[in-house]
Amino acid sequence: MRRTVAVALTLGLSSLLLAQETSTPALLGFSAATSSTEQQWEKKFRALPEAKRIHDNMEHLAAHPHHVGSPYQRKNAEWVMSQYKSWGWDAHIEQFDVLFPTPKERVIELLGPTPYKAKLDEPPLPGDPYTKDRADQLPGYNIYSADGDVTAPLIYANFGLPADYEELRRNGISVKGAIVITRYGGGWRGLKPKLAYEQGAVGCIIYSDPLDDGYGKGDVLPKGPMRNADGIQRGSVSDTTMFAGDPLTPGIGSVPGAKRLKIEDSPVIMKIPVLPIGYGDALPLLSSLDGRVVPAAWRGALPITYHFGPGTAKVHLKATFNWDTRPVLDVIATMKGSEEPDVWIVRGNHYDGWVNGADDPISGQAALLEEARSLGELAKQGWKPKRTLIYAAWDGEEPGLIGSTEWAETHADELNKHAALYINSDENNRGFFNAGGSHALEQVINDVAKDITDPETKTSIWKRQQAARLMGGRGAATEGGASRADVLKRATLSLGAIGSGSDFATFIDHLGIASVNLGFGGEDSSGTYHSAYDTPWFIEHFGDKDALYGPTMAQTAGTLVMRVADADVLPYDFTILTETVRGYSTELKALIKTMQRDAATQKRNMDLGLYALMADPQKPMELPVTLTSPPDYDFTALDASIASLDKAATHFHEAEAGMITLTPEARKSLNAHLALSERKLTSEAGLPRRPWVKHVLYAPGVYTGYGAKTMPGIREAIEEGRYDEAKQQMTIVTKALNDEAAYVEGIASSAK
Amino acid sequence: MRRTVAVALTLGLSSLLLAQETSTPALLGFSAATSSTEQQWEKKFRALPEAKRIHDNMEHLAAHPHHVGSPYQRKNAEWVMSQYKSWGWDAHIEQFDVLFPTPKERVIELLGPTPYKAKLDEPPLPGDPYTKDRADQLPGYNIYSADGDVTAPLIYANFGLPADYEELRRNGISVKGAIVITRYGGGWRGLKPKLAYEQGAVGCIIYSDPLDDGYGKGDVLPKGPMRNADGIQRGSVSDTTMFAGDPLTPGIGSVPGAKRLKIEDSPVIMKIPVLPIGYGDALPLLSSLDGRVVPAAWRGALPITYHFGPGTAKVHLKATFNWDTRPVLDVIATMKGSEEPDVWIVRGNHYDGWVNGADDPISGQAALLEEARSLGELAKQGWKPKRTLIYAAWDGEEPGLIGSTEWAETHADELNKHAALYINSDENNRGFFNAGGSHALEQVINDVAKDITDPETKTSIWKRQQAARLMGGRGAATEGGASRADVLKRATLSLGAIGSGSDFATFIDHLGIASVNLGFGGEDSSGTYHSAYDTPWFIEHFGDKDALYGPTMAQTAGTLVMRVADADVLPYDFTILTETVRGYSTELKALIKTMQRDAATQKRNMDLGLYALMADPQKPMELPVTLTSPPDYDFTALDASIASLDKAATHFHEAEAGMITLTPEARKSLNAHLALSERKLTSEAGLPRRPWVKHVLYAPGVYTGYGAKTMPGIREAIEEGRYDEAKQQMTIVTKALNDEAAYVEGIASSAK
Repeated sequence: MRRTVAVALTLGLSSLLLAQETSTPALLGFSAATSSTEQQWEKKFRALPEAKRIHDNMEHLAAHPHHVGSPYQRKNAEWVMSQYKSWGWDAHIEQFDVLFPTPKERVIELLGPTPYKAKLDEPPLPGDPYTKDRADQLPGYNIYSADGDVTAPLIYANFGLPADYEELRRNGISVKGAIVITRYGGGWRGLKPKLAYEQGAVGCIIYSDPLDDGYGKGDVLPKGPMRNADGIQRGSVSDTTMFAGDPLTPGIGSVPGAKRLKIEDSPVIMKIPVLPIGYGDALPLLSSLDGRVVPAAWRGALPITYHFGPGTAKVHLKATFNWDTRPVLDVIATMKGSEEPDVWIVRGNHYDGWVNGADDPISGQAALLEEARSLGELAKQGWKPKRTLIYAAWDGEEPGLIGSTEWAETHADELNKHAALYINSDENNRGFFNAGGSHALEQVINDVAKDITDPETKTSIWKRQQAARLMGGRGAATEGGASRADVLKRATLSLGAIGSGSDFATFIDHLGIASVNLGFGGEDSSGTYHSAYDTPWFIEHFGDKDALYGPTMAQTAGTLVMRVADADVLPYDFTILTETVRGYSTELKALIKTMQRDAATQKRNMDLGLYALMADPQKPMELPVTLTSPPDYDFTALDASIASLDKAATHFHEAEAGMITLTPEARKSLNAHLALSERKLTSEAGLPRRPWVKHVLYAPGVYTGYGAKTMPGIREAIEEGRYDEAKQQMTIVTKALNDEAAYVEGIASSAK
Repeated sequence: MRRTVAVALTLGLSSLLLAQETSTPALLGFSAATSSTEQQWEKKFRALPEAKRIHDNMEHLAAHPHHVGSPYQRKNAEWVMSQYKSWGWDAHIEQFDVLFPTPKERVIELLGPTPYKAKLDEPPLPGDPYTKDRADQLPGYNIYSADGDVTAPLIYANFGLPADYEELRRNGISVKGAIVITRYGGGWRGLKPKLAYEQGAVGCIIYSDPLDDGYGKGDVLPKGPMRNADGIQRGSVSDTTMFAGDPLTPGIGSVPGAKRLKIEDSPVIMKIPVLPIGYGDALPLLSSLDGRVVPAAWRGALPITYHFGPGTAKVHLKATFNWDTRPVLDVIATMKGSEEPDVWIVRGNHYDGWVNGADDPISGQAALLEEARSLGELAKQGWKPKRTLIYAAWDGEEPGLIGSTEWAETHADELNKHAALYINSDENNRGFFNAGGSHALEQVINDVAKDITDPETKTSIWKRQQAARLMGGRGAATEGGASRADVLKRATLSLGAIGSGSDFATFIDHLGIASVNLGFGGEDSSGTYHSAYDTPWFIEHFGDKDALYGPTMAQTAGTLVMRVADADVLPYDFTILTETVRGYSTELKALIKTMQRDAATQKRNMDLGLYALMADPQKPMELPVTLTSPPDYDFTALDASIASLDKAATHFHEAEAGMITLTPEARKSLNAHLALSERKLTSEAGLPRRPWVKHVLYAPGVYTGYGAKTMPGIREAIEEGRYDEAKQQMTIVTKALNDEAAYVEGIASSAK
């Protein structure tokens, strides 16, 4: 699975304060003396990761198809475990038995006078030996589609998101009883069949338009890295915005004896059949459509005029599945902490692929293994982490973050007590550093990034990301609302908020464990995502073939692990958190104003009869849906809770030097508390209609999927016109922020 | 030829003042009593135009190919003249003999292992009988290309505009010695071969990408109205930004005995061969290109990855021409004024097409003829225009505004003394009213537009255009910088500035005659522009087949003609002119600030080494061209001249009621002066390097072609880094504005 770029945040951070912090010689959470020791160990560590080993890891793990339950995935699990053991880690495999349907029948046919039967096949690529290894390949499908066999007219719905259905409606088109064809992109794939079903469609086809990752972006396979006409994007359509993991065991681990939902009762499994196709198969289908020409923004790169449809010919869509239970095999490796073993740092990357998955996820897993080997080597040299490290190779991420979720749900009580941090990565590529996550961690991540050398420019990865933000465009990760000039003045580059799409989701959204997601990329393009063509051969020809950024990734995540594991005081910064939260509040106020203005403008336009004046009698359009105007909310309590958090953060900051000089025993108790500080930012009840999602600041958007919504309870209620609910949610967020303020204040006071 | 949308203007007009004006019952320039008479005549006039006659005019004029010098164009000229005579007008044909090259040989071949010979042909369209009439068709070519026969590597240069060559350079690509292939769009076609030559290219191919008016926009011929793979856009590449008309007689009429340049000495004829092609012929050429993939904005809708090139195969381009002299036949019809015959109102639309030209220009010419017939009819009923009407059917517009230019240059002395107004139209389509031109005319045009009923919505064409501006998007003509809210408050919809691209250019740019350009459109799409497929059959199937907007156009232009011809005092409004000019000054100040900021940002980026930090070692990019920072200019004198004009405008406005009550003789003298007021806005020396262009407020942009540059002497000098020249030009504009102020002040005083 792949994380998409996180939603933008607003930060109005005082640069002065940060400038002071960065001018302090000691590392955050360390004394001058312990800083120096730490820096020596980190330096030794960073000399250890080897590109060749990472490349070899990649070739080994991605040598054969290795999806959930496949023979090679079992071999990989055992190999990964044995590697950890050989490096001196404790390691074991934890197995969860989960619902993992695989295709039985897949049919898409255009009927009528010029019939076409979709190939639904990814033939071997000339030159790429891996693609010949077809016996164990899963064919192209969307896991957690419903079984179905339907024949119906076809309608093109662009990305299949809410605004697209509004456009269809204004053009007088309903998808009721139709099969919807949507293109990939614009939002998370699972939303497409979900919304199609809600709109009354009986089936859904998702295709990869060449505009998005085919010849519209660059030369296609085998000449170039982009998707050819056969390439199919597999992927889960389980509604992970509601809950992640096994669709049958929300909130609990899929262990023997766990209470399971019936398949038909799982709310995250789709209600209509859905299949993904390549653009070779899409062309005859889209060419068959009549009706009005679509708006310019709906056009892809196929050499046709795109129409809404339907055409005269119907489409037959059949998809049936073997609804089997398969094993998910997480490899869990542990290095016990020397002083505070009950404070845990969890580090993970998945290792299941849709097919060979050389890029997704093995490019990241290969680097993670080298990071773990290097830490093992460092431990042999005498380094001892104060806190316990738990390194995980997650299985079953692709179907729905299953390995990480089932493990985290199974161990929820322990994690709640012990976990200070979860560090995630997924695929890793050549280019720019990108990080997102909990804002209490922004300072330490920035500090680490300043210490890592970019292999291409020989400056720090921080400097390079700063350059990208200053220049805009390629490689620039989300800059949380700060203007370009601010980027230059600020001591930190803001973290983007994270929603879902990779294994951090359960840790942050469900358990409220401070989490970050790290990676590199932005230089090499590829169109092999979730296809049979994501192989080691592809990496050799079009990817980071020398694993240039493998060691960099290992150095970055490993240094962060060490920094947090070794610090005298856990290196959280609540000042940045506060400023970020204040930015969210400001954004909400602006959102309300914008919605009020838009509703007023629409009302004026209606009152003035402008829609009638604009109308082309030869192409009548329905009136737009009437926009509602949100009320003016009272932000006093919410803003007061932010002010309390601000005060607490300042007190914590002032008390920090004192904390560092406490006795180890006193620090142990303090850190044990501190590790849990992110938990206060959750609500036990969870979000409305999705109780599994408990964090009050970050959640996957119901209509974005991967993309984060910040203060999601309030924001989504306002956006969707549930104005009373927004008010209730404001109370919940206010309470969480007051709890967090009191908690941080308590820790600060205890250190006096 | 087609006018493209004019450049945006800023107007900060006092809505109060205008509200007073519009609440005055009398028409601008009329007394209460004469207003009433005028309104009765106008009402009678507007009942006369008949759609059927306009449709018949179209079918007659576009029945056969009728380019300059063709047999049918001669017939059309005589028919138009006879029509005028039958309606009671004086009419005659004026002939000019001009350089009109036609193709001798046209070859484009891709050489190498998979050769391709371009068809360069527009075969008859199944169903369209007109397209079978091929004997008199001119094939696809760009008139005023050089003769040439070159074989060279091919490079794709997007639109072929300056920023595109900067992109090529940054990617390490030079077009020196190459043939450049550019797509239509982004700027005037003549710039493409001109810039290619300046960059060292030896030939130029211009193609119609399907994204721009082919299947990327809608269904193609014969199923839909958009350009099919064969359709070729003909068109002039004469550098009309320098001067319009016969390339051999700048500034003088092409009459017998006129001094002509040698062909090789004409600065407006291209120095390299250039040919236009359809996308069927473009596909093999573009497919042959290698090298880097182009930026996303360069991509068209062909089903390939677009590369910069070159490829391994070279291209052979041969274009030779018969450099003949051909007759241009303007039909000039006159209705003499009853009281002030020496004040002229000139009204024109061209009637030469590239092939059948049913839309361009006949849709406009057909309506103009009905307007003239209706005025003739009105005269029979007893209406007498105070001032002289000159109605023109221009020939030779397509090759370079030749008919209008040669006529205007020939009659320059008389026009200078007599012309109060030139009203232009070109093709006319279904939809929204659009007007651009001299801002002293904004009020009267708005007044007229409020009196014309839109045939589709039954409100005024003014209301409908206002709706389009308020809603944005489709049908909205340039709103001169006014925000949406202002549009609702203001009593006038601002006029866009006009540059070139239709027959108004010589009148306004060269002679300083107040000019406007009128038309309707925005509802029907078409891809037949300048192709053999722009026929009556096309109009019947995809255009305004009932000529719904023909009578509307006749009513609009005819009412404007009557309003200006009949007014007691010529209906100019210098207040709006002043506010518009003040807006230009504000824009220049903002332009300077933007350029200063951009230069500073670039310097910062250079100093910080950000380009190196952004660099992908696998795809090195050259540094961007260093931006220069314009100095701070002293606007005191310019702004003082605007203040003087403001004062004069107010005085004129205050004196207006008194002017209306002057004796007819006194008014005659006053109007004779007033008619010339736009002339003061010219400079005798003309613009730097293009002395033919004399207006100081409006000119076709050297790098936009059709699009206007406002205060062009100053603006282009700043944009192109000629900072001293900008200062000199500021003096020239200041002088013109002071002259205008003094002139208007003089007229206002004389009326006291």
